[in-house]
Amino acid sequence: MGQVTQALALREGGFAKGPRPQVPGDLHAHLELREIELPEPGEGQVLVEVILSPVNPSDFFYLQGAYGQPRQQGHAAGFEGCGRVIAAGGAAGEKLVGKRVAFLGSGSGSWATHAVAEAALCIPLSDAVRDVDGAALVVNPLTAVALVERGRAGGEAFILNAAASQLGRLMLGLARDEGLKPIAVIRRPGEEDALREAGATEVLVSSEPDFMAKAQAAIKALKPRVLLDAVGDQATADLFFTMPSGAAWVSYGKMSEEAPSLTQMGQFIFMGKTIEGFWLSRELLSAPPERSAKVIAQVQKRFASGAWSTRVAEEIPLDQALDRILPAYASGAGKVMIRP
Amino acid sequence: MGQVTQALALREGGFAKGPRPQVPGDLHAHLELREIELPEPGEGQVLVEVILSPVNPSDFFYLQGAYGQPRQQGHAAGFEGCGRVIAAGGAAGEKLVGKRVAFLGSGSGSWATHAVAEAALCIPLSDAVRDVDGAALVVNPLTAVALVERGRAGGEAFILNAAASQLGRLMLGLARDEGLKPIAVIRRPGEEDALREAGATEVLVSSEPDFMAKAQAAIKALKPRVLLDAVGDQATADLFFTMPSGAAWVSYGKMSEEAPSLTQMGQFIFMGKTIEGFWLSRELLSAPPERSAKVIAQVQKRFASGAWSTRVAEEIPLDQALDRILPAYASGAGKVMIRP
Repeated sequence: MGQVTQALALREGGFAKGPRPQVPGDLHAHLELREIELPEPGEGQVLVEVILSPVNPSDFFYLQGAYGQPRQQGHAAGFEGCGRVIAAGGAAGEKLVGKRVAFLGSGSGSWATHAVAEAALCIPLSDAVRDVDGAALVVNPLTAVALVERGRAGGEAFILNAAASQLGRLMLGLARDEGLKPIAVIRRPGEEDALREAGATEVLVSSEPDFMAKAQAAIKALKPRVLLDAVGDQATADLFFTMPSGAAWVSYGKMSEEAPSLTQMGQFIFMGKTIEGFWLSRELLSAPPERSAKVIAQVQKRFASGAWSTRVAEEIPLDQALDRILPAYASGAGKVMIRP
Repeated sequence: MGQVTQALALREGGFAKGPRPQVPGDLHAHLELREIELPEPGEGQVLVEVILSPVNPSDFFYLQGAYGQPRQQGHAAGFEGCGRVIAAGGAAGEKLVGKRVAFLGSGSGSWATHAVAEAALCIPLSDAVRDVDGAALVVNPLTAVALVERGRAGGEAFILNAAASQLGRLMLGLARDEGLKPIAVIRRPGEEDALREAGATEVLVSSEPDFMAKAQAAIKALKPRVLLDAVGDQATADLFFTMPSGAAWVSYGKMSEEAPSLTQMGQFIFMGKTIEGFWLSRELLSAPPERSAKVIAQVQKRFASGAWSTRVAEEIPLDQALDRILPAYASGAGKVMIRP
């Protein structure tokens, strides 16, 4: 018999029809707090006692049935976390037993007291890495590294919006450390200095009346050819159409409810512009494992040295999570964490 | 002193600010009929006495300053044509003198009694190729070949809209002859049978109420992953968002004035969809010359054998062109030709 765990379990399976908002209106409609029985960890899997698990934007898409993978009804939500390995299903996981690891839930997710994970994807954490950094060690940092690589492919400068997010800050620091010139776009004023300190060469505020004029000046000076976009609103489209020939709009998130209009289709033709998407799951699948391992080691080192640090809005016990996650998330103060 | 020629000369130079319509409201605003003096053909150039030159959609973009190359004020408009070589500027063109060729205007265009052309880009015409086919031998056929190549990159089936156009018909025949399954989209009913005969596996009419249902069925059955688009309207965007994972929207023209909305940005992320442009000038520049030569030979053979044929709406004398081009173009009956 498998481990019984307290979990935020998915009420529905599969995909929802049509698009869903970035943030759901009510978590109770999608999740319920209840006991579930995990499967026995198989060969190559381990059983993890969860210490802490983050709430990522991708979790919200997933639990609403709007992610690239179908929901598993009755299983726990939550993509990643950190925890202690307490059992192994086979020889491959034996050496992890007793260790604190960053993990990705396999089948059943991390928003639970226990989870099953693939041993090969568990990352043993050095003591210098805090729980909050270890819990968000996989999705955000690997996304940041991969997106900065994509940005670099267009030259020294690139634009990123939603730059005040956890992921945005990771990207700014990584880009600056690698000699790149990231142009940060934020929606509201207030964080300009903090983002310059985090690594931004320029900071543009999209709600300010002179936004497009300032954006044009920055684009003229720095010639960014990649736009890393987690917003997907009309301002993003307008920015894209202001960029030079060969510019790529890389969508990796959709925080806005707007459906942006392509006001200058001719730029695809005559200026060689493109729109594409970025999804970490696909990138990881296509990335060679040695490259992922190298990136993960690099990321852990950055956290251990303090170069990177996860800002936490709130840590919420599992049994209060369904009521408290959305308000904490809305505060925008940092990552929301679940501590079972 | 260079050859004096009667020409439809550009009133303005450079680019227009902002987007321009597919078809200009009035040609007199952009062109005037007058004598201009051509430069002496240089080394590697020839002087051509123009027989016939077509009106292409790209000509309308160019003369409005909305093409990918700046307008040359005071020079003739018109990208291509057929004519007889009457002089050569150097040894390279000597062997062409006296020959009937398809040509691209170099510096000054083909809407004139005479034009200067690069000898290396002149295509001697076999007697079996009619003037009307030779006049449109370069832009449309090379575009068709390159776009069908792009379509094939997504698998056996692809979608093309504006399928009743000259270019659309060329693509349908080429695709069918190569064992592909093109899905033709047209805006108004009436040409379904003709397009099936031309090579379409399916014909969809976007103005019909069951368009999306039929499109979904065809997409489910044939799984097209490339959408070759000369329209750029909301129906095109809706079609794109109905296509399977990995679908590419390839824009090569903009017949609609609509600015289509990206209603499902998540498909870029989770389904790996992309939007890109196609511009023949860029493709030709990046294509190896031997490939272009091979394609041109293939195209001429298709015209000579009657497999391809240019439909002509009207042949208009140069001195009546400014008044008669737009009404003839609006008839949609085929290619409008200028006979100086």
